Amino acid sequence: MSEKAIQDFYPDDVAQCYGCGRANEHGLQLKSYWDGDETVAVLQPRPYHTAIPGFVYGGLIASLIDCHGTGTAAAAAYREAGREMGSQPAFRFVTASLKVDYLRPTPLGPPLEVRGTIEEIKGRKIVVGATVTVEGEVCARGQVVAVQMPEHMLPGGK
Amino acid sequence: MSEKAIQDFYPDDVAQCYGCGRANEHGLQLKSYWDGDETVAVLQPRPYHTAIPGFVYGGLIASLIDCHGTGTAAAAAYREAGREMGSQPAFRFVTASLKVDYLRPTPLGPPLEVRGTIEEIKGRKIVVGATVTVEGEVCARGQVVAVQMPEHMLPGGK
Repeated sequence: MSEKAIQDFYPDDVAQCYGCGRANEHGLQLKSYWDGDETVAVLQPRPYHTAIPGFVYGGLIASLIDCHGTGTAAAAAYREAGREMGSQPAFRFVTASLKVDYLRPTPLGPPLEVRGTIEEIKGRKIVVGATVTVEGEVCARGQVVAVQMPEHMLPGGK
Repeated sequence: MSEKAIQDFYPDDVAQCYGCGRANEHGLQLKSYWDGDETVAVLQPRPYHTAIPGFVYGGLIASLIDCHGTGTAAAAAYREAGREMGSQPAFRFVTASLKVDYLRPTPLGPPLEVRGTIEEIKGRKIVVGATVTVEGEVCARGQVVAVQMPEHMLPGGK
């Protein structure tokens, strides 16, 4: 696995995301890493991340797939371009669409493992498939269509 | 609009959801209401619910669509059965799948209005369409496939 998280390469002015920004002290601070040709992130849910008692809130699962998906897309764009992670100008992706299938109730307690696979790279669009696994059992499966962030959305952009 | 929120009819032992449970003090406590044949919920995002600065975190939008969708499904099930909201046994739905299309960046600041429409009722499955609007502009559109919660997942269930 890579040593530094994908999100830790995000420029300081786009590192505020509630799901994965290192600069958001209230947020989840998800960290995604390359693991061969896949990416992986692990999150320990908090006791209050509940749906009905004993199970993880689906919005958390959607959030993890979303942030892991855009992070994976950024990393894939660097790899595709043959560029070092973090080299400028930065690749930063936003979500065009998100889909989650909740395959079974996700037990609340153990860490959640999110895995990403790159399904398609086409211009500024990257499609990432994802699974959320608890103790070896896949509980949710999702897909993120990520698009490279328009320059005008970046702080200081035009 | 109805006076009491759909989620306020959930039984006490399934009112812990981070997104919409009145008993979750850490959560969003989303409240959904009938408005004619549609349902509506309004949430004031907090300043830290950010994606990149100035825009709402996509995971929050997904969460709102998810919880508003399952709430709408419960209310639709009562209406379909010709039963009073809150009458027992309770209808409580979980999410089988969730889809969100992020149509444009959602500005962070004003309240988010989530609207639900009932697209299909078929046995234990109800499909709810949803939009998320800010100041009159639809920023996201989604769909929730909700299924009536299996009895064995209910506290005290078998």
